[in-house]
Amino acid sequence: MQERQIDIVIIGSGSAGLNAMAQARAAGRSFVLINGGAPGTTCARIGCMPSKVMIHIAEEYYRRTHFGQFGIDGHDGLSLDLTEAMKHVQELRDGFVQGVVSRSTDKLPDDVFIQDYARFIEPTLVEAAGQRFRARAVVIATGSTPIVPAPWRQFGDRVITTDEVFELPDLPASMAIIGMGTIGLELGQSLARMGVAVTGFDQIERIAGIADPEVNRVAIELMRAEFPIHLGAPAALAEAGDRIRVTAGEHEVMVDKVLSSIGRAPMVEGLGLEVLGLPLDARGVPPFDPATMQVGHLPVFLSGDVTGERQVLHEAADEGKIAGYNAAHVDQPPARFKRKTPFYVNFCDPNIIAVGARFDQIDTERAAVSEVSFATVGRARAMGAGRGVLRVYADKASGRLLGAEMIAPRGEHLGHLLAWSIEQGMTVGEVLRMPFYHPVIEGALKAALSDLYAKIDAKNPGPVIEVAPAAD
Amino acid sequence: MQERQIDIVIIGSGSAGLNAMAQARAAGRSFVLINGGAPGTTCARIGCMPSKVMIHIAEEYYRRTHFGQFGIDGHDGLSLDLTEAMKHVQELRDGFVQGVVSRSTDKLPDDVFIQDYARFIEPTLVEAAGQRFRARAVVIATGSTPIVPAPWRQFGDRVITTDEVFELPDLPASMAIIGMGTIGLELGQSLARMGVAVTGFDQIERIAGIADPEVNRVAIELMRAEFPIHLGAPAALAEAGDRIRVTAGEHEVMVDKVLSSIGRAPMVEGLGLEVLGLPLDARGVPPFDPATMQVGHLPVFLSGDVTGERQVLHEAADEGKIAGYNAAHVDQPPARFKRKTPFYVNFCDPNIIAVGARFDQIDTERAAVSEVSFATVGRARAMGAGRGVLRVYADKASGRLLGAEMIAPRGEHLGHLLAWSIEQGMTVGEVLRMPFYHPVIEGALKAALSDLYAKIDAKNPGPVIEVAPAAD
Repeated sequence: MQERQIDIVIIGSGSAGLNAMAQARAAGRSFVLINGGAPGTTCARIGCMPSKVMIHIAEEYYRRTHFGQFGIDGHDGLSLDLTEAMKHVQELRDGFVQGVVSRSTDKLPDDVFIQDYARFIEPTLVEAAGQRFRARAVVIATGSTPIVPAPWRQFGDRVITTDEVFELPDLPASMAIIGMGTIGLELGQSLARMGVAVTGFDQIERIAGIADPEVNRVAIELMRAEFPIHLGAPAALAEAGDRIRVTAGEHEVMVDKVLSSIGRAPMVEGLGLEVLGLPLDARGVPPFDPATMQVGHLPVFLSGDVTGERQVLHEAADEGKIAGYNAAHVDQPPARFKRKTPFYVNFCDPNIIAVGARFDQIDTERAAVSEVSFATVGRARAMGAGRGVLRVYADKASGRLLGAEMIAPRGEHLGHLLAWSIEQGMTVGEVLRMPFYHPVIEGALKAALSDLYAKIDAKNPGPVIEVAPAAD
Repeated sequence: MQERQIDIVIIGSGSAGLNAMAQARAAGRSFVLINGGAPGTTCARIGCMPSKVMIHIAEEYYRRTHFGQFGIDGHDGLSLDLTEAMKHVQELRDGFVQGVVSRSTDKLPDDVFIQDYARFIEPTLVEAAGQRFRARAVVIATGSTPIVPAPWRQFGDRVITTDEVFELPDLPASMAIIGMGTIGLELGQSLARMGVAVTGFDQIERIAGIADPEVNRVAIELMRAEFPIHLGAPAALAEAGDRIRVTAGEHEVMVDKVLSSIGRAPMVEGLGLEVLGLPLDARGVPPFDPATMQVGHLPVFLSGDVTGERQVLHEAADEGKIAGYNAAHVDQPPARFKRKTPFYVNFCDPNIIAVGARFDQIDTERAAVSEVSFATVGRARAMGAGRGVLRVYADKASGRLLGAEMIAPRGEHLGHLLAWSIEQGMTVGEVLRMPFYHPVIEGALKAALSDLYAKIDAKNPGPVIEVAPAAD
C-alpha cells in the first residue's frame, strides 16, 4: 500500500476541519483532508442553517395568531403548504451547503481532499482510500452523530433524527420528540407551529439544558402553551400497527414518527483511536487539553463536535484553529489558548440563552442575582412579545458579571452583549455606563443591571452611576 | 405675588426633567417640577413608544408580502382594519404614558408638581401658576416641538405632525411626508405599509441623516421600493379643493394630508431666556457646555431636546442626570462628564444605524473602511431578510474602531455591539476575539471586521487572530 509523507492529516472536512486546514495552509504545511460521508458541514447540511430556515417559516406562520390584536383581518384563511415549506428549507439548505463546499473542498485537488473514512494504524499513520499517510501531526475533526438507542432502530424510518427531518418531502400528522435539549425544543416548537401534533418528552425536569430554576420554570410554561411536554420520566417506544406508542410515566401518545434528539455522540466509530494507546472515555474519546486541543502528549489534536463538549459552531471553529495551529507547529511546545466565555443560543421563540457561569456553578453567598420579566419591557410590549425572563448573576465583591440565563425575545442579541461584557471582565457598573438606546429589548438588560447594582459592593467612580466623569 | 425659596426649579417633566429630579432628590435638595402642557414624556406620548407600536403593526402586516416564499397560502385575503390598528396604537400609548406619570409626577404633591408654563424673571427667579420661585439653580428641560413652517398653518388639520398622527382615528388615503429624517422615514414606511399612498420629500439628497454615501444609496433604493421619495428640491404646498398639491422640483402629488417632519425645534417660546443675559442662537438656545450642561457661568442648566442636539432619549436622560447633579451642587465647580459614543437608531425595516464617527468626519487617509452586504449573510437569508449594507470604519495605525453606518436587519442590536465596542476604545482585533454565535446577524459584523483587520496596521498578539493566547 502506498505510504505518503505529509505534514498534517486532517480527518473531517466540517467546520473544525476546515478551520484547521486554514491554519495548516497559513503555516505553509502540506496536508490532506480526509472526509467520510457527504461533504459539507454539519452546520450547513443538517444543523444551524436548515433549522434556522425551518424555525423562521414556523415563526412567520405563527404570527397569524397575533394578527388580531393589531387589526389584521383574514388570518383564519392562512394555511401552510408543507410541501412548499419543506422545499424552501431544502433549497436554502442546498445553497448553504454549496456555498461552503464551493469555497473549500471543491477547490482541493483529489490527492488533497480524500473522500473516504479514515482509520488510525499508528498515532501518526492514517489509512484511507487505499492509501496510508505518514504525518507529522494529525487533527481529528470527525464531528458527531445523533444518538438513536439500538432498540429504536427496529422502527425503521419512523424514528428519525436531524439527519432526516430536513429531508422530509412533507411532514407527518403527529410526532413525538424525545429529548427536550436545544435541538429537540427548537424542532418541536417549529413542527408544532407548522401544524404537526407534537408531543415532547425528556427524562429530566429541565428543558434546553437550562440551569436556572426560574428561567426553566418560565421556559417550560411558555413552551407548554404551544405543545405538550412530558418531563421527568424516560420514554419507551412500542409498535402499534403502523404507528408508534410512546409512553413515559403515566403519559402515553400514539404518533406517526419519533424524532430522537437525546444528544449527539462523537464520531469515533471505525477510527481506531485505540492505537493511540490512551484510555478512551465511555464515548470513545481520548483525553485532551482544551487550551491546546492536544491528545495526551501525542502529535494528535482533537477539534469540534468529536470532543463531545461545546458542540456549537463558533467553538468548533476556535478548536479547529487551535488544533490546526498546534499541528502545524509540532516542533514547538503546543501553544495554549484562552477559550471563550461559554455562550449557548437556543433559537426557540422566545430565544433561550445561557452565557458565562451557570446558576448551579455560582456561589449564592458571594453572588447577587437580579431578574427582569419581559412583561415589563416597553419595547417588548410594543412588539407584542412581552414574554420571558432574564436572570443575571454578578460577584458581589468585585461587581463583575458572572453569567446570565434567559428566555427572551431577541435573546440572541442580548446574549452577545452579555458574552462580550463577561469576556472582557466588565463590572455591572461599567456596563451601566454603556450606551443603551431607547426603546430597545436591551432595556431589559439595563433594568436587570440597575437592580443588580444596588446589590453589589463595587460601585462606579464619580457622582452619577450611569455617566462617567470626564477624563480631563 | 408669593415668592417661594427652593433649591432647584426644574422646568419640564419629560425624560430629561424627571432624570434631573431624581438627582435633586438623591442629593436631598428641595425642588419644584414645573410643566406646561400635557404631563407624560415626549417619548411615551408622541415619540419612541407610539411610533414603535405603529412600526410593529406595519411590519407585521407587511410580512404577508414574504409569505409566498415560505409556502404560506391565503395571504391575499389579509387586510388591515385601520381603525382597529390605530386603536391598538392608542391603547398601548396610553399605557406607556400612564406607566410614566404614575411612577413620577402623579406621586408629587401639588406644591411640588406645578402644572403651568414657566417664565424666567431673573436667571434664578422663575414664575409659574401665579407664583414665583427663587432658586439656587434652575434646570431647563422643556423639550422640543415639531417644526411647521408658518405658511403651512393655513391648511389647518390637513398638515399634521407627530403631535397628531398617533391621534388619528383612521388614516387618510394619501399623504405627503415632508422631511425624510428619522421620524419622516419611520412614519412614511409604516404608513405606506398600512395602505396609505405615501409620497416622501426632502430638499437634500440624503435620508435618515445618513452620512455614508454607500449606505445612503442602498437605503434610498430599499425605501423607494416601498414608496416614492423625491429628493433634492424643497416642497411647496398649495390648496387644491379639499386636498393639498405638493410640488418639489418637477414632482407633483395631490394628497389628503401632509405630515411635516422637517425637524424638532427647542421649546423656548415664552420662557423668557433673554433675561439670562447671554446671546441666544437662531433657535433661541443659550450657549451651554455639554460636559456640564451649564449655561454660560450661570446656575442654570440645560438638558434634553431643548438643547437642539442629540435629541434621543438616552442622551436626554444623561443630560438630565448631569444637569440635575450640577444643579444640586451649585456651591461647587460643575462636575464634568464624559458624553457617550454617538448612537442613532432609525427603526425603519431594515433599521438604519449610525454609531461613533460619521463618514464625513473620518480622515480617509488614516482610516480604513470595510463593507458587508446582507445578501451574503446566511442568517439574514434564512430569515428572508438579506437586504442592506454595513460599513465600518477603523483607524489604520491603532486599529481602533471609529464608527459605522448601516441599513441592516436587526441593526439596532448590531448598533449596541458597535457602540459599546467604540465606547470602550476597542480595536478591530479585540472585537474579533469576542464570541460570535452562529448563525447570527452579528456574523455580518464579524465579516466586516475580518476584512477590516487586513487593512489596518495594529495586529493582535498571539498566533491566531480570533483566539487569544492563554494568560498562563
